[in-house]
Amino acid sequence: MSGNSFGQVFRLTTWGESHGPAIGAVVDGCPAGLPLSEKDVQAELDRRRPGQSEVTTPRGEPDVVEILSGVFEGKTTGTPISMLVRNKDVESGVYEELRYTPRPGHADFTYEMKYGFRDYRGGGRSSARETVGRVAAGAIAKKLLGTKNVEILGHVVEVGGISVGGVTIDQIRKNVEKNPVRCADVKIAEKMRKRVEGAKSEGDSIGGVVEILALNVPPGVGEPVFDKLDADLAKALMSIGAVKGIEIGAGFRAAKMKGSEMNDPFRIKGGVVMTGTNNAGGILGGISNGMPITCRIAVKPTSSISKAQKTVDLSKKVNTEIQIKGRHDPCICPRIVPVAEAMVALVLADHMIRGGFIPTVLKS
Amino acid sequence: MSGNSFGQVFRLTTWGESHGPAIGAVVDGCPAGLPLSEKDVQAELDRRRPGQSEVTTPRGEPDVVEILSGVFEGKTTGTPISMLVRNKDVESGVYEELRYTPRPGHADFTYEMKYGFRDYRGGGRSSARETVGRVAAGAIAKKLLGTKNVEILGHVVEVGGISVGGVTIDQIRKNVEKNPVRCADVKIAEKMRKRVEGAKSEGDSIGGVVEILALNVPPGVGEPVFDKLDADLAKALMSIGAVKGIEIGAGFRAAKMKGSEMNDPFRIKGGVVMTGTNNAGGILGGISNGMPITCRIAVKPTSSISKAQKTVDLSKKVNTEIQIKGRHDPCICPRIVPVAEAMVALVLADHMIRGGFIPTVLKS
Amino acid sequence: MSGNSFGQVFRLTTWGESHGPAIGAVVDGCPAGLPLSEKDVQAELDRRRPGQSEVTTPRGEPDVVEILSGVFEGKTTGTPISMLVRNKDVESGVYEELRYTPRPGHADFTYEMKYGFRDYRGGGRSSARETVGRVAAGAIAKKLLGTKNVEILGHVVEVGGISVGGVTIDQIRKNVEKNPVRCADVKIAEKMRKRVEGAKSEGDSIGGVVEILALNVPPGVGEPVFDKLDADLAKALMSIGAVKGIEIGAGFRAAKMKGSEMNDPFRIKGGVVMTGTNNAGGILGGISNGMPITCRIAVKPTSSISKAQKTVDLSKKVNTEIQIKGRHDPCICPRIVPVAEAMVALVLADHMIRGGFIPTVLKS
Amino acid sequence: MSGNSFGQVFRLTTWGESHGPAIGAVVDGCPAGLPLSEKDVQAELDRRRPGQSEVTTPRGEPDVVEILSGVFEGKTTGTPISMLVRNKDVESGVYEELRYTPRPGHADFTYEMKYGFRDYRGGGRSSARETVGRVAAGAIAKKLLGTKNVEILGHVVEVGGISVGGVTIDQIRKNVEKNPVRCADVKIAEKMRKRVEGAKSEGDSIGGVVEILALNVPPGVGEPVFDKLDADLAKALMSIGAVKGIEIGAGFRAAKMKGSEMNDPFRIKGGVVMTGTNNAGGILGGISNGMPITCRIAVKPTSSISKAQKTVDLSKKVNTEIQIKGRHDPCICPRIVPVAEAMVALVLADHMIRGGFIPTVLKS
Repeated sequence: MSGNSFGQVFRLTTWGESHGPAIGAVVDGCPAGLPLSEKDVQAELDRRRPGQSEVTTPRGEPDVVEILSGVFEGKTTGTPISMLVRNKDVESGVYEELRYTPRPGHADFTYEMKYGFRDYRGGGRSSARETVGRVAAGAIAKKLLGTKNVEILGHVVEVGGISVGGVTIDQIRKNVEKNPVRCADVKIAEKMRKRVEGAKSEGDSIGGVVEILALNVPPGVGEPVFDKLDADLAKALMSIGAVKGIEIGAGFRAAKMKGSEMNDPFRIKGGVVMTGTNNAGGILGGISNGMPITCRIAVKPTSSISKAQKTVDLSKKVNTEIQIKGRHDPCICPRIVPVAEAMVALVLADHMIRGGFIPTVLKS
Repeated sequence: MSGNSFGQVFRLTTWGESHGPAIGAVVDGCPAGLPLSEKDVQAELDRRRPGQSEVTTPRGEPDVVEILSGVFEGKTTGTPISMLVRNKDVESGVYEELRYTPRPGHADFTYEMKYGFRDYRGGGRSSARETVGRVAAGAIAKKLLGTKNVEILGHVVEVGGISVGGVTIDQIRKNVEKNPVRCADVKIAEKMRKRVEGAKSEGDSIGGVVEILALNVPPGVGEPVFDKLDADLAKALMSIGAVKGIEIGAGFRAAKMKGSEMNDPFRIKGGVVMTGTNNAGGILGGISNGMPITCRIAVKPTSSISKAQKTVDLSKKVNTEIQIKGRHDPCICPRIVPVAEAMVALVLADHMIRGGFIPTVLKS
Repeated sequence: MSGNSFGQVFRLTTWGESHGPAIGAVVDGCPAGLPLSEKDVQAELDRRRPGQSEVTTPRGEPDVVEILSGVFEGKTTGTPISMLVRNKDVESGVYEELRYTPRPGHADFTYEMKYGFRDYRGGGRSSARETVGRVAAGAIAKKLLGTKNVEILGHVVEVGGISVGGVTIDQIRKNVEKNPVRCADVKIAEKMRKRVEGAKSEGDSIGGVVEILALNVPPGVGEPVFDKLDADLAKALMSIGAVKGIEIGAGFRAAKMKGSEMNDPFRIKGGVVMTGTNNAGGILGGISNGMPITCRIAVKPTSSISKAQKTVDLSKKVNTEIQIKGRHDPCICPRIVPVAEAMVALVLADHMIRGGFIPTVLKS
Repeated sequence: MSGNSFGQVFRLTTWGESHGPAIGAVVDGCPAGLPLSEKDVQAELDRRRPGQSEVTTPRGEPDVVEILSGVFEGKTTGTPISMLVRNKDVESGVYEELRYTPRPGHADFTYEMKYGFRDYRGGGRSSARETVGRVAAGAIAKKLLGTKNVEILGHVVEVGGISVGGVTIDQIRKNVEKNPVRCADVKIAEKMRKRVEGAKSEGDSIGGVVEILALNVPPGVGEPVFDKLDADLAKALMSIGAVKGIEIGAGFRAAKMKGSEMNDPFRIKGGVVMTGTNNAGGILGGISNGMPITCRIAVKPTSSISKAQKTVDLSKKVNTEIQIKGRHDPCICPRIVPVAEAMVALVLADHMIRGGFIPTVLKS
């Protein structure tokens, strides 16, 4: 039990169910003296919010955040920051029929097995709505990392088999928030959008790949041997519901490489030690080496589809079928971008404090 | 700081450097009453041991374990189990020249950046030798899981681009320990062996993919939302030095699938709810569903190669070259198998105790 | 940083400042299936509430709790339980003058030193108001312990030098909630009440001693060697603002005893091993022995008094005087009773789950 | 389970049984760059060692420590420091008869209840011998604290009812190590010694009180609201086997004081804010205020006495008697001094790193 907290010193606890009265997060261990307002958090929640476009769920929640503690006169005080978002657009009725028929690919069955019963409305605790708390906390982590010039960038690199070629940091910064799939290549983005709509029209869904970069992380961040930076990133990202795979740097390509190709040669550039390539993804031995940190995650197609699916009736113990109603994203990739960025930010904030790169009190 | 422990209730702490006097592990939280002897642990260490074949390093350490506490009259007492392995076959001389020239792909540079100086002999703490403690602890975890019939199986599925097709559980059980690459398909194993030797003769190394299965894990194991079973497996496996990618179930293939393909349909078989396919890899919403748990890891080619490589001299701050001497595995995949199994066993032991599946005192 | 959580598996995180918008708590790790409603929590909050009598602060807050998550259809779901209490009767104006003049005996000075600035209104995070979250969580812990028949009883045994002689369990159960000082001996209670009023009329305050008993704790609860039951009780109780001393069993009297007096002889009574005396206070080697667990805490006199006191002006760096306005308890002992009970309940709930005495899912 | 680690970032794990092959400790999270040798640790172990005088047990163990990891070229590397002490002077035979007859005041009974069986030789894990690991780790913590000029001083203030009046810091520094009871007042020390010998000659034992001071701790150390400095000190000290009570500053005297007496007035002295008195014991709101930190612990009389005592036979389930043989300290106070100092040092090292007062890498 007790798995709803994340981080060692910059520590997030989330709570709340999809159709309960509210959802929220408590951040403990944020250094004192960080300028912070509800606007900072709201901006990130708006990026995650449902109903942003035709490729996301039409559930129309404004998701307005209220900061209840830990901030005084516009700055963090070093005490826990509690954030609350009331649930508004809740249609619990459609879920009544899911009480005993677990949706394939969902956590309905496993929650029932684990806890003996569950809040089945809207997926309860296992709903993607839980990520509201992550994004809210991630907004604080990003603001904190910004004091050290660290930047987190997420973008969609593959959807339904369509993938981008190389994109530049500038393209990511410029284009990602301008198209509904959050792809840095605007032409590819349009193709992806059509692929998503195609799946949607079939009552189906599609998966994809999201990349997250962390720029300007200084060398020396990460704690061997178990709390390696890449190990904690892997946990952080795999803890997001739809993620089935993680790569750091070359990832699975590394399995096909020779050592002479994989090893990034060290070179001195402008007085600084850098590597010529970045197959390591910015991490060696679990510690950052100063190069961009690069992660990719495999995002499965949304489990909720309107096509008929085989399942069981747990009360009658018979096989049956299910057709899921309700409102769902045909492709979760675009909305996973801010969530994945948040998780990476949380890991880096935690590790940079642990390593002494960010002090426990910020001087203004 | 302080990242050398793993697990919440079944908790491992490892210590030791490659060329220090010894290396070891302390396991805290092992239930009382588990039959345990040094033989149980030694058997797993022998699987990890260097010098097993021509495809592994010739460093010839017997790696004899001594249990120093926590076992009385052949059973665990519920108190910490301390295990010690003395380092024997140590050739520190060859490392002297690495003091200021970090090896590409190694942790030399990042340890130097993080700690200001380092034990550079044999990679010090960042050496793969650190995994001795993991395998020793994993042996205890496996024994504990065995009381609930849970079985952990690891095997090499790809080396240097050569991959196995489907293999059966029986093939894995029967063949893996009989060939030097630990591949379940004996014909493919022979091809892989030659590929490794080819790389070795070129002074190079190659990577591969290892799969780890956990059988008979009951439904309900795992702790949402951050300590999801897959999240903790991802951390556990990514914390192994050479791992650059992780997949659970369909992994990156999921990114190319439709929801109607990916979702595993529930069916009742013999009174038990099972799924027809296992794209989920045995885990839904971070909780086991009773199907086999399947993980794959991308293993990079061994960083230590004898070919000349570009690097820098940190004392003189100039570019230079390095040619690594010493004894190294041309492909680490075979020896990573027991390490990866150990990490999976540690996660499962921890989570099965946390979830109440294994009691804190075993009745004999 | 990051010290606002308590417990290992039954884990409480509190947040909130005295004069912020709200105060609250998140409980993670409560077993699923426990019947729970807001009434259960409210009953304990009402015991802690200010304004109960003439010996407590007249600050008149209703302290109405709202449960925001983790409970469904009247039972806990195994997910985090978030509880919220809005702050109502807030008079921040009187605190303006305390901005730079730390109150003697208060945390004003140390918060300022630690964090560089602070929410000075009403003591901010260091206010006794923070204990709202503890009492709310303690109510859940008590309900959980009740499933195993464990009962927690607190009572005031000394106030301003007036102390009770021996009182029975029955007296405690019957009398404590019936008098404003929460003393089990009604005659002594009346004397104590007068002593408190005397101090109040002088603009002063007085301290006392509170005893907390835990009945029906089975033998075997507690985790050596650092998480001993008494060690965790000591931490729990010392973490309450006004506590300066802790005793388990004979406590400081043990220092004056001989081994032959101190050692509680074992005897078999009704087939059960018990001890003739209980100098150990129900704990041997950090593990419960089945006898009542007995703790006593020394409660200092309330720091806020209206008498003039010497202090400094931190902005001008000169010595000065302070006369504290606002509304304060002349003796905090009666209101510390439910807080101390809550802390003991939290420790026991946590340890009974850790030791397997309470399952992670309760069967109904 | 899993209670054998202490501290959050400077983290100690101890292991080992009284009559097992060895006993030891692993310290994780010690900053890199601290000069450290086995001599530093041995010096503290020698202070704890049995057989130092006629008032301690004659068990004659040299307790030679071996550092197995984490130190390179005379400095800590930032990796775990593993320390090992072989058990030598072991007389297990005398304990055979204790297998089923728990010694009053000992953990024999509760270990048996908790774990179902136990290593009964010499008390096994519950033996005071476990404190070897604490003292070894404490030696490192002290060395680390020394880099910030923090000094830890322990001394015996009461034995068998005989107590010292006021003693000065100088007396403590000068006299404590020169007399067998570790009392700072040499005349009182002699009286105490006789009292101990008197108890010994009767086959009995006596208790006492030990005070521990921490000097030069800067203001701002400690983490509200649960990890308050005094709360962690209370846990640390109460986790020592024989301790039954803890006081910080005025302790139980505070219960009898008025607020106007208890509150330490702030004054500026030499440009620094100090308090006129130190009833708070250097801690306000769980955070150090710059004054000396003062703790007192009540030490119970040694449980092992040679007088006949009532107990039970757990196998036959009948009442019986026991007469304990073996070698035991008639008064444990003198030998608890280095143990208590170690625990205080561990708490302060941990909190000073957490608060950023000690960096994670020390510059030489």
